[in-house]
Amino acid sequence: MCASSLTPPFVAEVDTPALVLDKTKLLDNIRRMADFVSGGPAKLRPHAKTHKCVEIAKLQLDAGAVGITCAKVGEAEALADGGIPDILVANQIVGPLKIARLVALARRCVLGVAVDDAQNVRRLSEAAAAAGVTVRALVEVDVGMGRCGVQPGAPALTLARQVLSSPGLVFSGLQAYEGHLQNVTPFEERTARVIEDMRKALTAKERIEAAGIAVAEVSGCGTGTHTITGRLPWMTELQCGSYATMDAQYRAVGGADYENALTVLATVISRPRPGMAVVDAGLKAVTPEFGDPTVLVEGAAWHDFSEEHGEVAVSGPAEGLRVGDKIQVVPRHGCTTVNLYDRFHVVQDGALVDTWRVAGRGRSQ
Amino acid sequence: MCASSLTPPFVAEVDTPALVLDKTKLLDNIRRMADFVSGGPAKLRPHAKTHKCVEIAKLQLDAGAVGITCAKVGEAEALADGGIPDILVANQIVGPLKIARLVALARRCVLGVAVDDAQNVRRLSEAAAAAGVTVRALVEVDVGMGRCGVQPGAPALTLARQVLSSPGLVFSGLQAYEGHLQNVTPFEERTARVIEDMRKALTAKERIEAAGIAVAEVSGCGTGTHTITGRLPWMTELQCGSYATMDAQYRAVGGADYENALTVLATVISRPRPGMAVVDAGLKAVTPEFGDPTVLVEGAAWHDFSEEHGEVAVSGPAEGLRVGDKIQVVPRHGCTTVNLYDRFHVVQDGALVDTWRVAGRGRSQ
Repeated sequence: MCASSLTPPFVAEVDTPALVLDKTKLLDNIRRMADFVSGGPAKLRPHAKTHKCVEIAKLQLDAGAVGITCAKVGEAEALADGGIPDILVANQIVGPLKIARLVALARRCVLGVAVDDAQNVRRLSEAAAAAGVTVRALVEVDVGMGRCGVQPGAPALTLARQVLSSPGLVFSGLQAYEGHLQNVTPFEERTARVIEDMRKALTAKERIEAAGIAVAEVSGCGTGTHTITGRLPWMTELQCGSYATMDAQYRAVGGADYENALTVLATVISRPRPGMAVVDAGLKAVTPEFGDPTVLVEGAAWHDFSEEHGEVAVSGPAEGLRVGDKIQVVPRHGCTTVNLYDRFHVVQDGALVDTWRVAGRGRSQ
Repeated sequence: MCASSLTPPFVAEVDTPALVLDKTKLLDNIRRMADFVSGGPAKLRPHAKTHKCVEIAKLQLDAGAVGITCAKVGEAEALADGGIPDILVANQIVGPLKIARLVALARRCVLGVAVDDAQNVRRLSEAAAAAGVTVRALVEVDVGMGRCGVQPGAPALTLARQVLSSPGLVFSGLQAYEGHLQNVTPFEERTARVIEDMRKALTAKERIEAAGIAVAEVSGCGTGTHTITGRLPWMTELQCGSYATMDAQYRAVGGADYENALTVLATVISRPRPGMAVVDAGLKAVTPEFGDPTVLVEGAAWHDFSEEHGEVAVSGPAEGLRVGDKIQVVPRHGCTTVNLYDRFHVVQDGALVDTWRVAGRGRSQ
């Protein structure tokens, strides 16, 4: 095997394409974020949409997280099946089939959900009350992303009042995610915009409290903004997710405190000509929407995706890559890449030490 | 339910996001391609990487296809498990773990594989011979895509000779896929370039035959080029796949003979403001690499993807969409979208008539 290819023992054992998770880096990342939040004021409720994995969620809880966030009922079911006791589904859950599943889940764990619509609140309330369960509802406030959520003034207060008077629901506070700012560069501009936009969450909180309603939680934040949003004195929960496994995108926009624990292992399946190595990882193995993955071989750079292949430009040491050699690449977007796989191959000190199920894989419902 | 939302009976039964397959359109598409190939000269060996589904593969075989093409050993295993008797893995299969699986598969079906590397041919031969099985090998020729494959002159002949003298392997002919031309527009340019580039496959065939070696098969072609490549007199197998379920991309570049049988059903989960409906289908439910999906609601157009949400711009009749309404969208790229799901919901005349497993989902190894 040539000098530019990989030699750790796990490489021979793991077929490709495969998700590889460096456990040492994962644990370091989890510890670093735990250290950060230990400075207060908010607690950590990490988002599991990025890893969809019970084992990782448990490591996060062990490190002090107060609960787990997820995006879909299906993810929440997978986490509850794995014994996670406190889950926030930080999205609107709509339609009788999903509401029935959400309510059933509230029998098995402490459960929260985001709301932004009066009719949806009625449906959730009817279902929860009929089932004799309690669901925590967070009124989602649009802090500038322009996606879901109500506006921070009268609409937020009106919806909070409705939740407060809805059997089966508890008004827990606000969902306020500044997703549109996670990747803003330079960091100074991100900081200024987060402080400005998150003021909308504070406005909503103050407006609701002025009406005599307690706002126990303000939950939001991501890996890209946690050092900003995470120090706002009135934030209570941070939903950062990607920090644990990381990806090339968050590293590119300044997430240098967290290491890329997640890679995709791929095999060179063709060396059609000098300068080009073709690997067995294409669009079904690494997602492209944020850009090209980073190839962890000196002299190699991702050139192009096709559906079943990745084209890697090679020069210098990487020209030594041969058919059959394996390489690691860091996905630009970890969350969607993980969702393509059924399991993580967990490695430590170069050895395969475990496989963890991506229990929430494909649970888009 | 408002006028602009969907009313067929299946809509209430199927939770979202979900793959929906219109069986009437699917059967029409399969019949149309069967009619086309009945005009000769080539046979049809449809590519299953797009649907990854045993039921659809069987419908294709019932309509006259001579076998099935796939991209990965894992897909081939899923098809063989479902009883498909003749499978071509139209890619290089590299590494001892995968070669062992490929050889095991050759005990269960007629099996072919593409090759473009001498060392890989040795490894395949050793494994096949040791297992006492026969694998059909097609020498892949690069017809201009610049990805895998050998050049059509001496390299193709050299590799064909090696295969011919390799125990456990049978030299079956050439793999020649003009993937780089599937989406060329206008169609006249696509036609001219296909005719020019596919001449490389003919050159390789003639060079090998001049050495006294029979070239039984020349296999290649896709949905976008089948009316061109499919009439070249020396082509023997067409690997078109997308025609069966179709997607917005192939329709956009002229595939008007085939209907979009495949859609994703999504639910409106938020109506944050006039002009905007947010649905529960984001990057984990519809893939973005070829562009935006087509929204099948008058006055609605896809606006943006986020990871768990789709933003749909609404005007005119679509302004009537309410939270809870369901809409259908046609993915721009069907192959990668299907790979996100475990099952198709098969509908006919508006009713849910079956669910078919995406048996090859995630089988990227």
